[in-house]
Order: sequence, then structure tokens, then C-alpha cells
Amino acid sequence: MSKSARTIKLLLEYDGTKYCGWQRQSPGHCAQPSIQETVEKALKVVLRENTRVSASGRTDAGVHARAQAAHFSTRSCVSLDTLLRSLNGLLPHDICAYHAGEVPASFHSRFDASDKTYRYTILNRKYPSPLYRHTAYHVWFPLDINRMRRAAAVLKGTHDFRGFKASGPKKISTQRTITHIRLAKDGDFIYIDITADGFLHTMVRTIVGTLVEIGKGRFPVTRIRSVFSSRDRRLAGPTAPAHGLCLLRVSYAGACL
Amino acid sequence: MSKSARTIKLLLEYDGTKYCGWQRQSPGHCAQPSIQETVEKALKVVLRENTRVSASGRTDAGVHARAQAAHFSTRSCVSLDTLLRSLNGLLPHDICAYHAGEVPASFHSRFDASDKTYRYTILNRKYPSPLYRHTAYHVWFPLDINRMRRAAAVLKGTHDFRGFKASGPKKISTQRTITHIRLAKDGDFIYIDITADGFLHTMVRTIVGTLVEIGKGRFPVTRIRSVFSSRDRRLAGPTAPAHGLCLLRVSYAGACL
Repeated sequence: MSKSARTIKLLLEYDGTKYCGWQRQSPGHCAQPSIQETVEKALKVVLRENTRVSASGRTDAGVHARAQAAHFSTRSCVSLDTLLRSLNGLLPHDICAYHAGEVPASFHSRFDASDKTYRYTILNRKYPSPLYRHTAYHVWFPLDINRMRRAAAVLKGTHDFRGFKASGPKKISTQRTITHIRLAKDGDFIYIDITADGFLHTMVRTIVGTLVEIGKGRFPVTRIRSVFSSRDRRLAGPTAPAHGLCLLRVSYAGACL
Repeated sequence: MSKSARTIKLLLEYDGTKYCGWQRQSPGHCAQPSIQETVEKALKVVLRENTRVSASGRTDAGVHARAQAAHFSTRSCVSLDTLLRSLNGLLPHDICAYHAGEVPASFHSRFDASDKTYRYTILNRKYPSPLYRHTAYHVWFPLDINRMRRAAAVLKGTHDFRGFKASGPKKISTQRTITHIRLAKDGDFIYIDITADGFLHTMVRTIVGTLVEIGKGRFPVTRIRSVFSSRDRRLAGPTAPAHGLCLLRVSYAGACL
């Protein structure tokens, strides 16, 4: 066992259906386990020591990830290949670590992230889909994607997104920059991909809920501007359900990360 | 209640993960329910009578369907709209009936089918996918899709597929006609779509298992021809797992069906 601590970055894919989200909960708080504690438990066996795993951000209960970035510190000298293989041997099939790399001790998966991309998937047809019931939000009311696209264009850039966040502490900054937003249609599916330097709690889902109301024709296309100017959550649409959301990618400025 | 019997055709989508397949099993034979008995139980409530539902073909345990065609006969005068809504209200979320239409009394979902299309999904990358673990077969060994395509081209046309079927009664005809076969690559996914006038038991999965061995370079590209000429199941590859298979479409000669 080496005595010098190493910092290791992980990339994780997970199906969030059966979890209370990324974040470890206080005992008795939630009947379902968290992704974090599930990964930490498996790492404890591999590393033979307790370790705390931090992620690029908390995903809510039911939210999925194709590439969640996380890091932890360890004194174990286990090779990265063995670490990955052993970890996946212990993890349940709904979580997979597919990359492990050594990073500088100063690396932090959350604070060093330059941007993150989320995808929200809507299934827009009359009947629900058994095969996509855990990964797509079923909207039976026909959506006008052109209205949604026009509305979404306004979201791009730097704005105060207070009106698009769940209630919470008011002192923190609610300014974020959306660098890319794209609505793509593939058959009955609508994919909404959003890249930003950071996201407020339920921000993507509130944006999607608002775009859906605009797509239904219940909100005017200008409603996004009204939420920006009023910063009033009550003007935005309902929070779209968690199961349609997936963390696609976390980027770091350092190319090697 | 009308006394004249109607024949009704259903289109069903289902996630086969938790079922022992389409076919009703004798009691105690299988711990998991069948799709057939689940649909029949729900129909009994809606129609207020027992009915037997026949499908275009039996899907095995774990096999999915985007569009399984089935039919049943009833004396109930329930409207098709009410039938669909009530049925879906009773069915579990992993089964959905998305179309119900009245058809001639002579219609049979199996015997009248002119062709069926199956899709087999392979995930070809080093690490498995939590999000696609129930719908794609994970093959970590790199596959050469060009070898697979060259081999697959030989499958097209009318052949004796005895070497590609599970053991069973030898007297039935094992001649089938594959009208279309297409291998498509999308990122790490390989989709194998096969349309034929009919399929023998485990035929698609045995074809896929053979193509995978060819893609790995373990079988020569000519192996398909060897299986045809020998009609020897032992020359084909292992049966690919059920969860990668999905019944995509069933066609009927009559346009209205």
C-alpha cells in the first residue's frame, strides 16, 4: 500500500430509476439508496478504506446519467484497471464506472467543471411507451416544436434563472450562461439538449416544463422573457418529471481531465 | 350487449423483461406471468367475458415488442376507444395496447401475417450500459461490421433455416424467406433488422449469434453457407440473449389490417 494519497476521477453511467438521486441521504430519510452511497460502499471493498466520492453535481431521484464525473481520494495503490474491474464487479447493473483516471490532488469534479450538458427526452404521441417509460416523459398533447424552438432561442446566453429554479436559499447567485440549446425531433421523440456553465436546482426540468406549455399553445412564445424579467417561478411551467432527464456530459477546461 | 361476435385486432408494445414470454404457461411452470395472460386478464374486466388472445407469434422470455399484432373475438359491444382506454388503465406499465381495430371474423394475426420484422440490438464497447441493459446485448469484443455485413448478405432469399433453429420437431417445414436484412451502426450500437415471411424458434437469435462470431473473426465469413449446406445447428454460433431482440412490425397483405 502506497502512503501518498492519489486523486482519482471516475466517469459513471447510471439508470437513476431505483435511486433517491446522487446525494447520500441521512439514515431513514429515504427508502431508496443513493448512487453516491452505492459507489462508496463498493469502493470501500476495493480500496479497503472509507472514501467520500464527490460528483460534478447532484442528480435528483429518477434522473439518469450517461457520463457523471466524480472524484475521490485514496491511499490504496490499486491499479486503475483493477479498480474499474473490481468496482464494476461489485456495483449493481444499474450503475457502471467506465473510466478511472488519476488527476492532480487539486482536482474537484464540481468546482472545476467548465460546463455540463443535460438531455431531456419527451415522447410526444397519443399512447405511452413501455420500452421508454423510465427514460422519456410522455406528453400525449401534440407539441408544436417550432414554437418551442423559437422560445428556446431566448434562453441562450447569460441570464438570471431565478424564475426557473425550485425555491431555496435566495442569497446564492442565480446567474448562469447557457452556451447551447437544441431541440431535435426523431420520430415521436423530442430531445432537448442544454449546455451551461452550471444549473440551478430543477432548472432544466422547469425550462422543459415551460417549453412544453409553449409547445401546447397554453403559454405564449414570449413566456420565457416574462419569467426572466419577473424572476417569478409562478410564471414558468410545471417542473417536468425527473425520469426524462439525463446528464450527458461534464467538461473540464484541462484537456487531460 | 350485442350478441354478434366481433373480431378485434390489437397492436401492443411491451417490455418483455419481467415476463416468461408471450405464451400462457401451464400453472406452476413459470414464476413470471406471460404477456398473453396479462392481456387476457385485463380484457376480461373490460369485456366482462373470458377471451383468448392470439398473437402473430410467440416471443420468448425477455424479448420485447414495439408492435406485436394480436386478435380476439368478443360479444361485447364496447367501443374501440373505450376498449383501448380501459385496457391500458388495467395493464401494467410494461405493456401498452396502442391500437384496436375491428377486422373480418376470418382474420388471424398469425396465419394472415405476410411478414414480420425483428430488430436485434448489440452494444459493442468495452463497458456495459446501465441504461440499455434490458434492451441491448453487450459485446465487449470489437466487432468487424463489414465482415458481418458480407456474411449477412448470404442470408437473404429463400433457404432451409434448419441449422438456425432450436432443436424441436423435425417434420415441420424449415424453409423461410428473408426479404430484407440490414446492419446499421450508430455510435457503439449495431442494429440488425431482419424481415422474413416467418421465423423458426430462436432463428433471429441464432443468426445474430453466428454473425457475432463472424464479427469477432472466430468464424469465417463463409460460415453462414456452411450452416445452410449442412443444416447442422452445431456449426452456427451460440443463441444471442433474448433481451437484445424486439419485434418491430408485423405486416398483413390487406392494407386495412
